[in-house]
Amino acid sequence: MAKELKELTPRDENYSQWYQDLVIKADLAENSAVRGCMVIKPYGYAIWEKMQGYLDGMFKATGHTNAYFPLLIPKSFMSKEADHIEGFAKECAVVTHYRLKNAADGSGVIVDPGARLEEELIIRPTSETIIWNTYRNWIRSYRDLPLLINQWANVMRWEMRTRLFLRTAEFLWQEGHTAHATRREAEEEALRMQNVYAEFARECMAMPVIRGRKSDSERFAGAIDTYTIEAMMQDGKALQAGTSHFLGQNFGKAFEVTFLNKEGKTEYAWATSWGASTRLIGALIMSHSDDNGLVLPPKLAPTQVVIVPIYRNAEQLGQISERAEAIATRLKALGITVKYDASDNKKPGWKFAEYELKGIPVRLGLGGRDLENNTVEVMRRDLLRKETLSCDGIERQVQALLEDIQGNIYQKALQRLTSRTIEVDTYEAFKSRLEEGFFILAHWDGSPETEERIKNDTKATLRCIPAEGDGLPGRCIVTGRPSAGRVLFARAY
Amino acid sequence: MAKELKELTPRDENYSQWYQDLVIKADLAENSAVRGCMVIKPYGYAIWEKMQGYLDGMFKATGHTNAYFPLLIPKSFMSKEADHIEGFAKECAVVTHYRLKNAADGSGVIVDPGARLEEELIIRPTSETIIWNTYRNWIRSYRDLPLLINQWANVMRWEMRTRLFLRTAEFLWQEGHTAHATRREAEEEALRMQNVYAEFARECMAMPVIRGRKSDSERFAGAIDTYTIEAMMQDGKALQAGTSHFLGQNFGKAFEVTFLNKEGKTEYAWATSWGASTRLIGALIMSHSDDNGLVLPPKLAPTQVVIVPIYRNAEQLGQISERAEAIATRLKALGITVKYDASDNKKPGWKFAEYELKGIPVRLGLGGRDLENNTVEVMRRDLLRKETLSCDGIERQVQALLEDIQGNIYQKALQRLTSRTIEVDTYEAFKSRLEEGFFILAHWDGSPETEERIKNDTKATLRCIPAEGDGLPGRCIVTGRPSAGRVLFARAY
Repeated sequence: MAKELKELTPRDENYSQWYQDLVIKADLAENSAVRGCMVIKPYGYAIWEKMQGYLDGMFKATGHTNAYFPLLIPKSFMSKEADHIEGFAKECAVVTHYRLKNAADGSGVIVDPGARLEEELIIRPTSETIIWNTYRNWIRSYRDLPLLINQWANVMRWEMRTRLFLRTAEFLWQEGHTAHATRREAEEEALRMQNVYAEFARECMAMPVIRGRKSDSERFAGAIDTYTIEAMMQDGKALQAGTSHFLGQNFGKAFEVTFLNKEGKTEYAWATSWGASTRLIGALIMSHSDDNGLVLPPKLAPTQVVIVPIYRNAEQLGQISERAEAIATRLKALGITVKYDASDNKKPGWKFAEYELKGIPVRLGLGGRDLENNTVEVMRRDLLRKETLSCDGIERQVQALLEDIQGNIYQKALQRLTSRTIEVDTYEAFKSRLEEGFFILAHWDGSPETEERIKNDTKATLRCIPAEGDGLPGRCIVTGRPSAGRVLFARAY
Repeated sequence: MAKELKELTPRDENYSQWYQDLVIKADLAENSAVRGCMVIKPYGYAIWEKMQGYLDGMFKATGHTNAYFPLLIPKSFMSKEADHIEGFAKECAVVTHYRLKNAADGSGVIVDPGARLEEELIIRPTSETIIWNTYRNWIRSYRDLPLLINQWANVMRWEMRTRLFLRTAEFLWQEGHTAHATRREAEEEALRMQNVYAEFARECMAMPVIRGRKSDSERFAGAIDTYTIEAMMQDGKALQAGTSHFLGQNFGKAFEVTFLNKEGKTEYAWATSWGASTRLIGALIMSHSDDNGLVLPPKLAPTQVVIVPIYRNAEQLGQISERAEAIATRLKALGITVKYDASDNKKPGWKFAEYELKGIPVRLGLGGRDLENNTVEVMRRDLLRKETLSCDGIERQVQALLEDIQGNIYQKALQRLTSRTIEVDTYEAFKSRLEEGFFILAHWDGSPETEERIKNDTKATLRCIPAEGDGLPGRCIVTGRPSAGRVLFARAY
């Protein structure tokens, strides 16, 4: 592939095009022949596997186990919780038949009209209904609670406008579904999992987030409260990176999930659900990457270090390879993933550009002079900065560098979030700051009408009522009516 | 739950009922509200996660990477490979619409007739078509080959008679799809993956298998050759535990996947695909378990050791717990998964039965006398045999015991397979041996008609043409016509 094929639209020219270029050119994903459904390519999937590994470990550490529930949901289940059907059943894939047959005219296969399902089945857009229908038989007594289950699965929502990772008809995610004996326990669980997402974002994705609660109009269909983590992308737009819902007894009642409490009385079970998806890959890209390509936090980089030989002839390559492989072995012993690229059909310059595009955190270059001097050229992807180091103890240096990169890109993202989140007190200031790409903390009168008006005027949505704020009351920037405290507005993905 | 609820139908009374009882009572899986779709419960899913971990590692060690392709396949794709459509498209879930709406009469939601898809979409029964349609754009030159990709996914086949794990409409599996520059490389890959499955069965599942090639009538729809591993269940029936297909250029041609070879000529790519599914959990159960419940090989047991305290009062429980937790810590340090069950609402006898049912390989019992004597009672699940050992160095003893159990259940299964596989030379002997639960090696004339006749007469199918055999020719037991070598027949799941 020629070098120019790898060039990206610069971010300040067209951020959206830059994102699309990068997803394609870094071989993360592509659109498929099925409208709205993506193919997650090996490199993109390897990042997802890293994310899964950390998240799964965090879920298990908080007492959850995995299980698997059916892909298809009977249509009638979707209707049992009134808000839920409004939010989810409208745009979904509907299975109506279970057989194809050869067309009588030999033109191919057609749907067999004789194989129509009695009740249509929906491809799950989310699994509360099928799972709570199952929980009815699993829960009898308070001793069966809490029930703490997670599922890794594909889901489908028939989105009209799709963008790779950010909004696709089919996507991969995890969905936790828990049942509890008391309201308080369920509320604690919902907040616990919001914090797990925030910690994952911070520690693994190097992505700071604002934790908060959704307004009534933005919360999950069927929830009492939706807790969210909101991240700031480089263009100042917000991305909802994980949500955790306190569902009250809504699904317990809809699916008649009752239990005998300690006092021997029958009660409906309390519920939470929480999810994060392949959308996080989009968030990761737009948090750290640059005009040269991906910048990946070392913890999520499928390959953390690449070694590239720079050689004149086969004999020199042999000597360099020996050195490179010794270094690779020492790095692997520290648990670092490393690739030695001695492929002979690409020049070092091409390889350098390729691995910058792919966001490999550290590149080691080894040439003839390095052999003589017992040195190696070390390039860190985040700062695109090079230095020459001794081969002695290089593995510890690289290990420290990876930690430094992880910390540095977090600090950079935190600096952006902090410096570009601002309090405003007038609607004028709100509008102008929004154009400049700020997250805005403003007073709001608490009404859906005002929220809707702001959205229509400015395309900004109420991202959350922040968990941490000064909590001081004020006056709504639009209506002047009383406000209990500032809330967060931004344009969003 | 009372003890009697845990009791299983004995195997020699009704093997099929024993299997069903065990799957339900050991909390592995259950039927869902959606016909033919199962719920994989946490304990069953934990076994699947163990299987996934080993298989995924083996795929990566042989150079494969994971990716993800769409759940839905356009109907027209299924028709492009003539044999493939015959084999798969007939019984499948068909998506025809993408929206529901409220019924005019307020009775609920109905399928919106205005949201009919132009082309119907099929829920993947297997992904050759959508993947090879994608590969068309990924493969240009021999330098892009081999392409070695695996996918972990759910698939759906509209089965009419379903059994938990063994045959369900939706199931979880992995499907490898590789593309190669030469016929030879693709054939080698197909055989390599058959061997990976055989090794996984032997080393992790403790399940010996017979490797072989399928006959024309049993091979995968669209394949040139299907390589299989066949395991013997306790009732003498065969279970196909993994298949690997050499697909020739069939999909390359159907989806126009061509590449420039080293000589600069355009060729169609060569293909393989290979898969193993949650069916393996059924195979695992029917390989080793007994009338008391599951017997799990230690490598796949979600919990390898359980410690149960036997105590008179709270004070004694405190002393036992201290000892138990010290032992648990030492076991964990050796990478052994261990659970200490000090729950106070169940008696030791109930716990013993429960953990036998669940197939925990080793149970440690700690009572008052053990405290005095510095001993522990060690029960091995495979032989249901107890011994009292010193607490000193118990962790190494348990580690060795786990290895011994893994080896012992393999040997037991191997002994069954070996002693119950027999050569027969007459159709009479064939029929009587089959009734006695034997795998039968017999001469066959190579014709689909004879194969069909045997199937109709005896319900035995041709499981495979074994990879290892004496290779000596003979006469077909049915027609007396020449046979190139003995083939394997059995009744099968």
